[in-house]
Amino acid sequence: MRHLLAASVAVLAFAAATSVRAEEGMWTYDNFPIARANQTLGTNIDQAWLDKVRLSSVKFGGCSAGIVSGQGLVMTNNHCVATCVANLSTPQLQYGETGFTPKSREEELKCPGATAEVLTDITDVTARMHKAGEGLDGQAFSQAREAEAGRIETEACGNDPKIRCQVVSLYRGGQFKLYKFRKYSDVRLAWAPEDRAATFGGDLDNFSFPRFAIDAAFIRLYEDDKPVETPVHFAWNPNRPTEGEPVFVTGNPGATQRLLTQAQLMTIRDVVLPMDQLIASELRGRLIRYSEEGADQAFIAMDPIVGVENTYKRGLGRMRALTDPAFMDQLAGQETAFHRQVAESEALSAQVGDPWATLAAIQPVAREMYAPMALLEGGTGMGTTSVAGGSQLFQWARVIVRGAQERAKPSDQRLSEYADSRLPAAQSGLFAERPTYPELEQIRLEWWLSKTREWLTVDSPHVRVLLGRESPEQLSARVVSGTKLADPAVRRALWEGGLAAVQASDDPLIKYVLSIDEDARAVRTEWRNKVDAPTARASEQLAAARFAVYGDAVYPDATGTLRLTYGRVEGTDVPGQRIPAFTTFAGLWDRATGAEPFNVAPKLLAAKDRIDPNAVMNMAVSSDTIGGSSGSPAVNAKGEIIGANFDSTVLTQRNAYGYDRNVNRSVIVTTQAVTTALRDVYGMDHLVQELGAATNQTPARRARR
Amino acid sequence: MRHLLAASVAVLAFAAATSVRAEEGMWTYDNFPIARANQTLGTNIDQAWLDKVRLSSVKFGGCSAGIVSGQGLVMTNNHCVATCVANLSTPQLQYGETGFTPKSREEELKCPGATAEVLTDITDVTARMHKAGEGLDGQAFSQAREAEAGRIETEACGNDPKIRCQVVSLYRGGQFKLYKFRKYSDVRLAWAPEDRAATFGGDLDNFSFPRFAIDAAFIRLYEDDKPVETPVHFAWNPNRPTEGEPVFVTGNPGATQRLLTQAQLMTIRDVVLPMDQLIASELRGRLIRYSEEGADQAFIAMDPIVGVENTYKRGLGRMRALTDPAFMDQLAGQETAFHRQVAESEALSAQVGDPWATLAAIQPVAREMYAPMALLEGGTGMGTTSVAGGSQLFQWARVIVRGAQERAKPSDQRLSEYADSRLPAAQSGLFAERPTYPELEQIRLEWWLSKTREWLTVDSPHVRVLLGRESPEQLSARVVSGTKLADPAVRRALWEGGLAAVQASDDPLIKYVLSIDEDARAVRTEWRNKVDAPTARASEQLAAARFAVYGDAVYPDATGTLRLTYGRVEGTDVPGQRIPAFTTFAGLWDRATGAEPFNVAPKLLAAKDRIDPNAVMNMAVSSDTIGGSSGSPAVNAKGEIIGANFDSTVLTQRNAYGYDRNVNRSVIVTTQAVTTALRDVYGMDHLVQELGAATNQTPARRARR
Repeated sequence: MRHLLAASVAVLAFAAATSVRAEEGMWTYDNFPIARANQTLGTNIDQAWLDKVRLSSVKFGGCSAGIVSGQGLVMTNNHCVATCVANLSTPQLQYGETGFTPKSREEELKCPGATAEVLTDITDVTARMHKAGEGLDGQAFSQAREAEAGRIETEACGNDPKIRCQVVSLYRGGQFKLYKFRKYSDVRLAWAPEDRAATFGGDLDNFSFPRFAIDAAFIRLYEDDKPVETPVHFAWNPNRPTEGEPVFVTGNPGATQRLLTQAQLMTIRDVVLPMDQLIASELRGRLIRYSEEGADQAFIAMDPIVGVENTYKRGLGRMRALTDPAFMDQLAGQETAFHRQVAESEALSAQVGDPWATLAAIQPVAREMYAPMALLEGGTGMGTTSVAGGSQLFQWARVIVRGAQERAKPSDQRLSEYADSRLPAAQSGLFAERPTYPELEQIRLEWWLSKTREWLTVDSPHVRVLLGRESPEQLSARVVSGTKLADPAVRRALWEGGLAAVQASDDPLIKYVLSIDEDARAVRTEWRNKVDAPTARASEQLAAARFAVYGDAVYPDATGTLRLTYGRVEGTDVPGQRIPAFTTFAGLWDRATGAEPFNVAPKLLAAKDRIDPNAVMNMAVSSDTIGGSSGSPAVNAKGEIIGANFDSTVLTQRNAYGYDRNVNRSVIVTTQAVTTALRDVYGMDHLVQELGAATNQTPARRARR
Repeated sequence: MRHLLAASVAVLAFAAATSVRAEEGMWTYDNFPIARANQTLGTNIDQAWLDKVRLSSVKFGGCSAGIVSGQGLVMTNNHCVATCVANLSTPQLQYGETGFTPKSREEELKCPGATAEVLTDITDVTARMHKAGEGLDGQAFSQAREAEAGRIETEACGNDPKIRCQVVSLYRGGQFKLYKFRKYSDVRLAWAPEDRAATFGGDLDNFSFPRFAIDAAFIRLYEDDKPVETPVHFAWNPNRPTEGEPVFVTGNPGATQRLLTQAQLMTIRDVVLPMDQLIASELRGRLIRYSEEGADQAFIAMDPIVGVENTYKRGLGRMRALTDPAFMDQLAGQETAFHRQVAESEALSAQVGDPWATLAAIQPVAREMYAPMALLEGGTGMGTTSVAGGSQLFQWARVIVRGAQERAKPSDQRLSEYADSRLPAAQSGLFAERPTYPELEQIRLEWWLSKTREWLTVDSPHVRVLLGRESPEQLSARVVSGTKLADPAVRRALWEGGLAAVQASDDPLIKYVLSIDEDARAVRTEWRNKVDAPTARASEQLAAARFAVYGDAVYPDATGTLRLTYGRVEGTDVPGQRIPAFTTFAGLWDRATGAEPFNVAPKLLAAKDRIDPNAVMNMAVSSDTIGGSSGSPAVNAKGEIIGANFDSTVLTQRNAYGYDRNVNRSVIVTTQAVTTALRDVYGMDHLVQELGAATNQTPARRARR
């Protein structure tokens, strides 16, 4: 404790100088503050350590993961393989219920449409990107930028299916970097526990600590039908972690909004979060009732409910952050200090202008346009509402329709997601063999249509285009019952048939998406002209000001790309209570009531006598993470993996807007818990062996009463 | 138009002097600004006019109504008789579908549990009430006040079942008045249109204008099985209204929060509305999906869905008001001006202290306690969330349990709703013959239990009391399937059996409510101590300050008691558009698509050729109303009834916090439309005759194509 306090004092002094506090920051690998981390934590990491950790880190869809053996074995969270497990399951064979426990590599099954990537190179392309947008405004500005990014990506990666290139905007346009990834397109499921073992406590315990969840799973990278050789990987450390020990978390945090101005945050507080949350809550209600209609419905609705509840609970934490007077005063104070420093420098003011005023002037438009943009087009970059309520069939139909329209143009004139360098991603999602459930699709579409009508009002021209004279109930029933897009062969034929095939199609969903496409594109164009492009320009000025004032001792907002963050294994103090850093299996047995969601998974419960009750299940760390960090390897100072990040707490959701050392905690499933599960519960001895997971502790094999 | 503009200028000058703008205010009948209304509108009303209008005004449950014949006939809204219609209907005989069209008085049917009241006397009891609370704090303060109110009511009304007395707090404790009502306990349904005729456009057109809804119905007051003689009543004016003509609206607006401080409003913005709205949205989703499971489910869910959607949409309008920077700046400016006037007077400051600071200091506690109070006990006076999700069976069980416990004490030591003067109301609700639907009850209870667990968190001691080791699903299924409280005879036996019967009952719902009662009462006590009582004390000081600064040229917040408000028949200007004051039947035919909710009710559609297309259906007026004003008679300067208020617009929802002349519009169904419906659609000739509704227009009987 004394050691920690001493460190904190040093940190406060440092914070005052840079506006960044110790353990704050989701740092890029090419600007990681090695010296400062070593100083704060008493560690001794270096560039070689960084390189090895980076090359052992994996991006897996919207999640993170880490390579843990020389044969392409990768650990992530169970919730990151939920879609894969659902895709491989049927109502008769539900791996979510039983766990997925192949007895050998031959039984590992391919996750439809899944890919995994390792970041191999980072190159600065800021100058080129800034030049592309020079002197342009609105749609022209965005288009030129996107076209340039597409060109850079294609030049660097060509058509090599094993490489992916991505131009990444950092510091909200302050920097642009070309990220090059080694890409693996054959990812197989190697182990998943029973769903309840990973989700004990369900939505109620989600975003909370203490936790008792083995939210881990293994996938394996394949190429040419063989496991990929991965000589660079994390060493597996199956031992009990130590309170206070340094922890690094390496992964792909999704999105933070820490560089937003107060005016922008008010739009999120007043408009974005209320709409997102209110309509998600209704979908949740529809899905919950649907899940109660029978066993099949319960199976079909399970994954969607978990998804909605997770997003909703995160949003609730954010609403609370933005309406917490003390927290908001703190953010406002930081902005005021920064703004003052800029205003006091005549040269800097002349250079960057007043981006705060520009951004404030954009907000009335953004407030007005958020609902139509989010509901009709998606991709606002502000909220979680997505077009068509997440209907899989609709998404496929839109990719088919737009893919055909866009491929008829030169790459640099297309919508950015259909540029040559992005087509493989679009295509692999489209061709994946994924089950769809008509009732679920209809619930999503009906809900989306009715919410769009409600939020845009029934007399909106958009709504007339969307519905014609049909009701949401009629329209959704008609297109879902009539479409053939559930069949991958049909999707492939339409994709390969191009515009002619699309225009000749009598598939009702294709015809429907065609009929609303022009209107949705117009909304997107208006949004780009009036919100996106001017925001991007002003944000770049703000970034320039920030670099001028703080140098590179600031980190960029999270953007779903690889970051490294550092902290310690540590509990929390909440009023009247000290929450310890660890939970154990003994705590799980105590918390179990037998009633959902506090029922222990059957195989886990059956193994109770074989499990060391003192083994650590989950731990809290102070490292700075956010959604997307799911599955991120937690690494010790020696570069060994000691766990996988899978959650944080509701209070930590303020993390989107600012780091709060007092409450920020990430929640980690330990390698000790995973080793226990593999060995004592699921009989995955071949994986235990592959991990070299001999522990320095004797497993408890005594009987407990 | 010129006339209106001239009036507005006068009004602005007046507003500056008093902080109240012309046409603003839901005035009590004993402080109505006769001179100012006459001056603003060019009318000539007097005290006799006021008395007649008051004695023709009816409180009908949570709605308002007006007596329109000498034989006890009363007009209100169709949505105000929705519960009655649902109670009288069965899945086989759905009056909502067919309309309720008795051919004579003998066929009029009693609305179970319904009562109607006319306000006959108002007496000032401020001194007595203030004295009762002198020198007391917290629970003791509230208890003493409530006991005194109970004594005043009992002294004035005794046990006469035809009279009800109520001590009404006005100006948030600035004044207390004893209201004495003539009460009618036999209320029968005399006419209701097809539900769709009253709700054309459904939730989408709700809270909007233009509207096309015949949201009217008739009830009749009975006593001794005979219609009540009502010599004082409104004359029925079936003629087309005139744009710009003066309108008075007399009714019982439910609750406004205009006298709240900014700190109090922030609690509503940040805590109350978000929780209320988010959980209501989920209930809505559950009910919508349930309604899609079959025809019976659709019937059962219809009324609850309408109720949830109405409350939700109103809440959405309020969220928008409280996050509208311009509107909030205006309110803040008014507060600042008032606060400054108080601060500048040393004497006044010494007298009232700093109630703003006191109220601000209460807010952190109110924020923390809102969820447990609203969910476990209800009656926060701040939001719409109610205990047990509106489960009828639960409400009965609680009345039985608490009624038994409380009746064992002297009247002045009871929970206020069980004081002697309030017992008849509790009892008549309990004994009413109302159908309950087990599936609906279970949906409500399950939702409530799961939301309570979610908002208070699973580890809350309250939640442990509420659920024990059961899940919300298990518990709700168990108590609903096992309870016998759907049977009125069972309820009556338990009520009459008192505490012994309740304690001996093995009814699972009675046992359950008993098991959670102590905890819920403790929450209520804490709320009263820490929020209610100190808020009441500070609000009284604020009221004293307001009287000192503005005299009685201010009106009290709405409290569900009789008020009179005035304005004009008038359209609105919204950006880029003039919305006219009237809609006609021709507009209805235009708007109809045939798809729900834009399908015209069958009988109404069949009568199309008999209906004058130019007859006015609905009109907008600038009078100041709010929820609870539903059914309020709209009266012209001669005291004739020309319509019934039934709605306002989403923008008007800011009305809860302040009157905005530019956007505030109440929506009225005209007597012309009602006359048309009675005569040309529903064949209610005996009512037309009773109303003396010969019009000065010839109904159009020409054919239209």
